[in-house]
Amino acid sequence: MNTQSIIERIHSVIGVRESFTPLHIPIFDEREVDLLRECVESNMVSSVGAFCDRFEASLVEFTGAKRAVLCMNGTSALHLALRVCGVEPGDEVMIPSLSFVATANAVRYAGAIPHFIDAEAVRFGMDPLALEKRLDAVGELRDGALYNRETGRRIACVVPMHAFGHPVLISELLAVTNRFGLQLVEDAAESLGSFYEGQHTGNFGVCGILSFNGNKVITTGGGGALLFNDDALADRAKYLSTTAKRPHKWEFFHDELGYNYRMPALNAAMGCAQMEKLPKMLAQKRALAERYRQAFAGLEGLRFVTEPEGCQSNYWLNALLLDEDSVDQRNAILEATNAANIMTRPVWAPLDELPMYADCPKGSLDVTKSLAQRLINIPSTAGL
Amino acid sequence: MNTQSIIERIHSVIGVRESFTPLHIPIFDEREVDLLRECVESNMVSSVGAFCDRFEASLVEFTGAKRAVLCMNGTSALHLALRVCGVEPGDEVMIPSLSFVATANAVRYAGAIPHFIDAEAVRFGMDPLALEKRLDAVGELRDGALYNRETGRRIACVVPMHAFGHPVLISELLAVTNRFGLQLVEDAAESLGSFYEGQHTGNFGVCGILSFNGNKVITTGGGGALLFNDDALADRAKYLSTTAKRPHKWEFFHDELGYNYRMPALNAAMGCAQMEKLPKMLAQKRALAERYRQAFAGLEGLRFVTEPEGCQSNYWLNALLLDEDSVDQRNAILEATNAANIMTRPVWAPLDELPMYADCPKGSLDVTKSLAQRLINIPSTAGL
Repeated sequence: MNTQSIIERIHSVIGVRESFTPLHIPIFDEREVDLLRECVESNMVSSVGAFCDRFEASLVEFTGAKRAVLCMNGTSALHLALRVCGVEPGDEVMIPSLSFVATANAVRYAGAIPHFIDAEAVRFGMDPLALEKRLDAVGELRDGALYNRETGRRIACVVPMHAFGHPVLISELLAVTNRFGLQLVEDAAESLGSFYEGQHTGNFGVCGILSFNGNKVITTGGGGALLFNDDALADRAKYLSTTAKRPHKWEFFHDELGYNYRMPALNAAMGCAQMEKLPKMLAQKRALAERYRQAFAGLEGLRFVTEPEGCQSNYWLNALLLDEDSVDQRNAILEATNAANIMTRPVWAPLDELPMYADCPKGSLDVTKSLAQRLINIPSTAGL
Repeated sequence: MNTQSIIERIHSVIGVRESFTPLHIPIFDEREVDLLRECVESNMVSSVGAFCDRFEASLVEFTGAKRAVLCMNGTSALHLALRVCGVEPGDEVMIPSLSFVATANAVRYAGAIPHFIDAEAVRFGMDPLALEKRLDAVGELRDGALYNRETGRRIACVVPMHAFGHPVLISELLAVTNRFGLQLVEDAAESLGSFYEGQHTGNFGVCGILSFNGNKVITTGGGGALLFNDDALADRAKYLSTTAKRPHKWEFFHDELGYNYRMPALNAAMGCAQMEKLPKMLAQKRALAERYRQAFAGLEGLRFVTEPEGCQSNYWLNALLLDEDSVDQRNAILEATNAANIMTRPVWAPLDELPMYADCPKGSLDVTKSLAQRLINIPSTAGL
C-alpha cells in the first residue's frame, strides 16, 4: 500500500475531479424549495405547524417508532433524552469514548458525568463485554440503584452510538443493561436508515435520537429528533422542549426547567422533502460503498469498512481501517488525499483525551485508542 | 370602562373580522422564498454558509453593533452571553421577575441562580432604583468581586430585558452596575428596532441578545443573535456556539464545553429577507400603535402603553395597562376579547412565582406583582 494506490482507488470509484470532493454534502432538488414555499405561505414557520407533525409522522413511518419528537439538533435531542430518562445532576452516564463530542456534552448539560467505555473492533461502537467488565468492576447495587463504588455516584444510563451508521451490538448491550437495571438510550445521530436484525436503530432502548445536521444522511439545516415507543415519555420530551409551558389559552406558567429546543416548521418542511428521497439516497450510498469495497479489495495494509453481520448500514460515512502496522502512514494518507482534492479525515479524538473530560471515569480504552489512529473517512455523498 | 368598549376600540383600529386575529404573526412575501431557494441551491444550508455572514452583516448595519453572532434562538444566545461574560456555576445573576421564562432558564443553563429585581411602573423593565437598593442591602465587595452576603454567592451579572420592546432606563442601570463593578447583558429579545436616545438596544452593556422566534418583529422560524462591540468576545461566542472546536483542517479537537447553538444558513436566509422589510414593518407597527393610542384616549380605567420619553420603541406587543382599581376586570376583558376573536393575553407570570424559581433570592417585587395583574397585550402584527 502507498498513498498513491489509495488515491487511485478512490478515483476509480468517484472519478477524477477538478474540484474538491467533500466528505458528505446534502442532495436537494425542486421538492425542498416547493415545501419551503408551502411552509412560508402557510405563515407557520416556527415551532408549531403542520410540517412539524408531517415530518414526525414520516419519521415514525420510516423507523417504526411509536412516536418521534422533533428537536433543534441531535445534541439537544440527547440532552432531552437524558432528562426524560431521569438522569440527575451528579449521576454518571456511560458513553463511548469514540464518539463526536456532542455525546459527552449532552451528558454535561444534564449535569451528569460521562463515564467512558471502550469500542469493539468491528463496529466501532460500545463493546458489550467492555461495558459488562466495567460494571462488574465498579458497580454496586444499593437501594435499587446502581452506584459507582469508586466515585460514589449513581450510574443512571448507558448511551451507545452507532458510529458512521454501523449498528452496535445492541442486543448484547441490552442484555448487560438489563442485568444491571440500567436504562439504555441510543445515540442514533449517524444511523438514520440503519437496521439491526431488521429493526431500525434508535428503537431498542428507552429512546433513541437522530440528527439532521448538514453533514448527515438527510438534513434540515440543523435538526434532530427523539424516537419513543412510549407515549408518556414522548409527551414529556415535547413538553420539556417547549419551555415546560402548562397548556392554557393565555396564561404563561411553566412547571419546571424547560428548553427552547423545538425544531422550527421551516426546517421540518425541508425534512419532509428529504424523507421522500431517503430510500433512494440509501440505495445510492449502499451502491457507493459496494464500489469502494470492490476497489479496495486485495489492497494490503487496510480494509474498507463494511456493514456488520445481521445489520443493514446506511453507510453514512465510508471508512478505511488501517492495519495496526500501517498506522504510521495515516497522516501521509490524509495529507495526500486532501492535497489531491479528495476530502478525508480521521475519526474524532477520543473524548477522554479532551481537556474538559480528561478527569472522567473510564474503563480500559485500548481498542478506542487503536481505532482512533487507524480510521480514515472518505467521500460518502449519495450519488457520487 | 366595560369589556364592550374595549372590543369596540380594538375593532375601530383593526376592523371587525370574521376570523381570529392573533397577537403577532410574521409577514412574508416572495422575497423569503427567493432567498430560501438561493440557499438551497447553494447547498450550504447548515451552520456554515454565505447567508449566515450576510444576516450577521445586516444586523450589524441595522443595530450599529460591531459584531453580530447568530444563534439557534434568543435563549441559547443569552446562555452564551452569560458564559462569555464569565458567569460561573453557583453565581447569581440579577434579572427582572417580569420577563419570559427564558431569561431565568438561561441563567440556570449556566449553572447560576436568578436573583429577581422589581420592575418600574412606566417601562416595565428592571428598575434602576430597585436594583441599587437591593445591591446596597445584600452586596458586599470582597477580593474585587461583589458577593451576596445573605447567600455567600458571587453576583456576576445584571440582565435587564426591554419588555414588549420598550427600552428600560439603561443609562441609569449602567450607572448602578458601574458603581458595583458588575457586567450588564441586555436581553433585547423583544426590542429589535427599539432605540434608547438614538442608540439601538443591545448595544449598551457587554453584549446584548436578540430573538427571531415566530412571534417576534422579524422571524427566522427560530433564531437569535448576540451583539458585541468587542471582537474577542464575539469570537469567543461563535467558538462556544460551534462546539468549541479548535480550528484544524481535519482534526476534531474541542478545548472546552461547547454547544451546538449556531443558526443554520437556511434560517439565516429567511432572516436576510426579513431584515429588508424591517424598516417598513417598524413604521407600520408605530402607525398601528398610534391608532390604538388615539382609540383608547379618554377611556377611563386603563391606558394604552406608549414608548418612554427619549426612546423609540418597536411596539413589538401593544399593551393596555389597567388602573389599580380596574384590576378585577382583567379576566373578564381577556375572556370577552378572545371570545370576540381578538387574541389578547396577560403578561407572563412573575418568574419568582414559578415552582423552579420560588426559592431564588429577590428584592421587593411590589411593582412587578401589580403590573402582572394589570397588563393585557392586544393584536400587534405589522400592517394590521
